[in-house]
Amino acid sequence: MENIQGYVAEHKQRFLNELIELLKIPSVSADSAFKNDVLRTAEAVKFSLEKAGCDHVEICETAGYPIVFGEKIIDENLPTILVYGHYDVQPADPIELWNSPPFEPVILKTDIHPEGAIFARGACDDKGQMYMHVKAMEFMTSTNQLPCNVKFMIEGEEEVGSVNLSTFVKNNHDKLKNDVILISDTGMIAKDVPSITTGLRGLSYVEVEVTGPNRDLHSGLYGGAVANPINVLTKMIASLHDENNHITIPGFYDNVEELSKEERAEMAKAPFSLDAYKKSLDIDAVYGEAGFTTNERNSIRPTLDVNGIWGGYIGEGAKTVIASKAFAKISMRLVPNQDWEEITQLFKKHFESIAPEGVNVLVKPHHGGQGYVTPINSLGYQAASKAYEESFGKKPIPQRSGGSIPIVSLFEQELQSKTILMGFGLDSDAIHSPNEHFGVWNYIKGIETIPLFYKYFTELSK
Amino acid sequence: MENIQGYVAEHKQRFLNELIELLKIPSVSADSAFKNDVLRTAEAVKFSLEKAGCDHVEICETAGYPIVFGEKIIDENLPTILVYGHYDVQPADPIELWNSPPFEPVILKTDIHPEGAIFARGACDDKGQMYMHVKAMEFMTSTNQLPCNVKFMIEGEEEVGSVNLSTFVKNNHDKLKNDVILISDTGMIAKDVPSITTGLRGLSYVEVEVTGPNRDLHSGLYGGAVANPINVLTKMIASLHDENNHITIPGFYDNVEELSKEERAEMAKAPFSLDAYKKSLDIDAVYGEAGFTTNERNSIRPTLDVNGIWGGYIGEGAKTVIASKAFAKISMRLVPNQDWEEITQLFKKHFESIAPEGVNVLVKPHHGGQGYVTPINSLGYQAASKAYEESFGKKPIPQRSGGSIPIVSLFEQELQSKTILMGFGLDSDAIHSPNEHFGVWNYIKGIETIPLFYKYFTELSK
Repeated sequence: MENIQGYVAEHKQRFLNELIELLKIPSVSADSAFKNDVLRTAEAVKFSLEKAGCDHVEICETAGYPIVFGEKIIDENLPTILVYGHYDVQPADPIELWNSPPFEPVILKTDIHPEGAIFARGACDDKGQMYMHVKAMEFMTSTNQLPCNVKFMIEGEEEVGSVNLSTFVKNNHDKLKNDVILISDTGMIAKDVPSITTGLRGLSYVEVEVTGPNRDLHSGLYGGAVANPINVLTKMIASLHDENNHITIPGFYDNVEELSKEERAEMAKAPFSLDAYKKSLDIDAVYGEAGFTTNERNSIRPTLDVNGIWGGYIGEGAKTVIASKAFAKISMRLVPNQDWEEITQLFKKHFESIAPEGVNVLVKPHHGGQGYVTPINSLGYQAASKAYEESFGKKPIPQRSGGSIPIVSLFEQELQSKTILMGFGLDSDAIHSPNEHFGVWNYIKGIETIPLFYKYFTELSK
Repeated sequence: MENIQGYVAEHKQRFLNELIELLKIPSVSADSAFKNDVLRTAEAVKFSLEKAGCDHVEICETAGYPIVFGEKIIDENLPTILVYGHYDVQPADPIELWNSPPFEPVILKTDIHPEGAIFARGACDDKGQMYMHVKAMEFMTSTNQLPCNVKFMIEGEEEVGSVNLSTFVKNNHDKLKNDVILISDTGMIAKDVPSITTGLRGLSYVEVEVTGPNRDLHSGLYGGAVANPINVLTKMIASLHDENNHITIPGFYDNVEELSKEERAEMAKAPFSLDAYKKSLDIDAVYGEAGFTTNERNSIRPTLDVNGIWGGYIGEGAKTVIASKAFAKISMRLVPNQDWEEITQLFKKHFESIAPEGVNVLVKPHHGGQGYVTPINSLGYQAASKAYEESFGKKPIPQRSGGSIPIVSLFEQELQSKTILMGFGLDSDAIHSPNEHFGVWNYIKGIETIPLFYKYFTELSK
């Protein structure tokens, strides 16, 4: 392609300003208080796709938040790339830990990002990475270099499980027909170590509720004589891991894919410093399943984490109360071959079975998705690899991510096409955390790399 | 005494209205947001004592909330009764579980209180029970029947540990000099089973904080690879009880007073229905330390309960996060001979020692107090027993309460006088819980019974 760097350099400030405007809208899909903002964001995305050169853009209503669909078909005989992304974001809590308001983006320099990084909820996950594709499209159309057909499908419910997207995909096979799916919603190992994500973990997210007495009780008058729902909940949760940090749910590991010595040796080659890892988190030791390395624990092994817990008096000072109820949000990251719905049922059955007398336990499945693996010999992976090599000057490393994009395995099943995960974020970008940010360098590099994928994918498809 | 019932019947409506006005002020000492309300309540109590006939009433400033002191000395040669109570109340959370606003008192009939009960935070604990003494005083002074000297000491920090009251008591031995201390801040077994509390449990209240990574993390990218503070906290708390629900803190039971077979047999005579107990709480089974009955578990045995726990995302929907910190408020009820400060140190030492690598643990002692036992052969107990016998028509039963009034043991130590606990509340009054209430019958009965204690204590002191 001609003059990518030149075009991007010329329009860099506008590319930043447009993203910042998008980040100002608090499109938190998990909290209904933000409903209008989520809907406004869909409109903004539609407008940006029209400006970027799509011939046809529409807002497709669903039972939940709408999906923005756009396309430009230049020749039925050319391959079609389907770009997926999401315009919703994670909740910003705990707000008090943000150094600047989560929906008032600011660009600040950091050690890792001397060129500056955009600080805002969604800066990286996924507004920033999604918008790289919109700007890459603008470059290709405005310079008449779009080499193939393109479709965009940008949803607003990724952070809450993409429940309605799956229905949309099942009902729109023709509309979404494509030769490869392209997603930037993952990360790369480091700015000087480009990588392509070849695996994702599945997810099962549940909420549990333990109920004891029918009302809060005085801990002096009842303490020690009735089951305290909080004490019981801690015992139940603690029992979900054994002394080796293996998960104790019967059947949980039955379908877990065991990697070969060779595959684990290959993984171990990825550059990784345990000291730097611990230092970046201010921890004196790592923790996890016995027999596996840190990078294995967060990629090829399934895990169970409490994401939130609450019960009783959590205000200032002291209250000598025994709460009637205690709650927890628990998620399990799954690996290929573990079926998320089956795991959810195994969890429910087990958790209810370990409830002691004196309490009632309720397990509410939230959402989930299957894991995914893509082979590195596919056309799409080869095209992505060449694109990175040209733009970064070095061959990218294939890596398994610990994250989940529930929809990816469904795409393959419904649309019979492979997904290529070209992520430009860094683990240190603090996605899902206070002070989420996305490097200006990474944002620009993404916009420069994506058109090359279009080029090589079209060439290799001939 | 002459015409107690007649006087009380005549002024009943006013007695109720005055208490309701007092209950309208949200004097929550645990939450600084209510500071002005707590101070206003002290003023209201001062005014009520003046109206009730005290010769001298003052508001004594402390490092925290003030203590209202009032007295009427009629003859140096007569005995002096010191009445203690508190005008602060527990927080009202969880507000949403109240059937009526906690600080807008309403009188409603219940199965146990067909004459109606006053629903409001503090109705029983302790504004209602404290105000019985103010009205009993009014009766005795306005009918010229006060048989002895009386002093009032009403504090505003009982629900947060009475830290400043202890200093006040230490510095005012002469001012507080008395022959017996009278408190109504406990309960009785049932409306037709009057009882006098002869024992209280001590208390140690701590807050714990577990810190893992220096920021909230994405549970996909870090899940299973770093210590999750919430999972760790649940493991640590769960380990504080063994399979028999014995507390595992080394040295915790060293000084626990073991009751004799005879004493336990005596206790077992108190009327108690396990079925009714379970039914009133909607639980299918009780729970607690192996080898002890329900009434023993909540009176003569020490216990450990989590009063509050929080960490991570507790909002609507799902957030796949690993929290940087997790917290819990934990209280231990102690029995006579267990020193609360020593137990607090044992807890701190043990809890810090069981923290795994990868997290930091902070234990913040909140407050506490010693347990207490009063002999039933004392003058005060005998006088109280006669008072109940005359007003209820039956002899009261001595009982140990599971609750704590940290200040009682300090009174004995500093003022060398015994405390008599004449409680008129019921366990079902839901103190410290939503919908706290106090029976109109109990309130009136208390006002009728208290003057008889003055009468008999004075007679027996001759």
